[in-house]
Amino acid sequence: MSEKDLLLIAEMPGFTPQIGRLVSMMNYVRSTTLAAVAGLGLNELDYLHDPQSNSIGALLSHIAAAEAGYQAATFYARDLNEEERLEWGASLDLGERARREIRGHELDYYLRRLEQTRAKTLEELGRREDQWLNEHTSFGSGQRVNNYFKWFHVFGHELNHRGQIRWLRRLATERT
Amino acid sequence: MSEKDLLLIAEMPGFTPQIGRLVSMMNYVRSTTLAAVAGLGLNELDYLHDPQSNSIGALLSHIAAAEAGYQAATFYARDLNEEERLEWGASLDLGERARREIRGHELDYYLRRLEQTRAKTLEELGRREDQWLNEHTSFGSGQRVNNYFKWFHVFGHELNHRGQIRWLRRLATERT
Repeated sequence: MSEKDLLLIAEMPGFTPQIGRLVSMMNYVRSTTLAAVAGLGLNELDYLHDPQSNSIGALLSHIAAAEAGYQAATFYARDLNEEERLEWGASLDLGERARREIRGHELDYYLRRLEQTRAKTLEELGRREDQWLNEHTSFGSGQRVNNYFKWFHVFGHELNHRGQIRWLRRLATERT
Repeated sequence: MSEKDLLLIAEMPGFTPQIGRLVSMMNYVRSTTLAAVAGLGLNELDYLHDPQSNSIGALLSHIAAAEAGYQAATFYARDLNEEERLEWGASLDLGERARREIRGHELDYYLRRLEQTRAKTLEELGRREDQWLNEHTSFGSGQRVNNYFKWFHVFGHELNHRGQIRWLRRLATERT
């Protein structure tokens, strides 16, 4: 993505008009996540603020995992399959399992996971038309949720955890 | 807003098509902020996790203040005026000044500020056409930023702080 146009929510080459706007929001959010973790070392990535906290590494992995989950849901209308659950389970669950399993990785490891997942998202979004964003499913309650919402939720989820990452970074940097 | 359609990012009555999608994202984010603080009392709203932390009350006020700032910037092409600076200064700055000045208010006080600010935003957005979202200004660096980005940033900023609020709520509830 062009650094110059990072602050334009607008149509983008390679995507239909609405999907382009969505992708420009996703791109911007990702750029701020990457800025929030730039230069972090192993100690900060594994830092646990208290026994219930998630590490920055686990949160980065969680961000990628949520994206993988919504890929399955929106592109293929299914849940994660067994292989994907093996790959993403700890990252999705966070908590104790993530504290045990997600650690000891350098920043590049997490960045690669984020990148690979995003590449697939963009490839799939590039194949779709705006009308796809309006397609919706319904919960048992009758509440409808469309594909636009689901991808809006993915970047909102990322922003939410980026807020935690920024705070954790301050705490981890002070204490490690 | 209709609870039933809260999970649709789509056109909305009273707004042009693109602005409707933007407003539906803003509405959803706001609903989650309100859920994150529902039922909090004075002690939790004023809770300071450490000497550099912001209270939940200050963060709620900060969310409204940022929105007021972007109203001035995008609707009136100006900075906050003196009167608005008096009203929002501590909320915008956060930090020491906010710790000193923003405290002792019940939840309703913060909710009212959020609501009043949002009502004005929706009124102004309702008067505008989609094309307005593409209007942009430029930084000295030449980087362009359009109105869509600015309002995307407002709800992204809210999400970011809501992430902190959720965490603070857990900490405040444990310790007060």
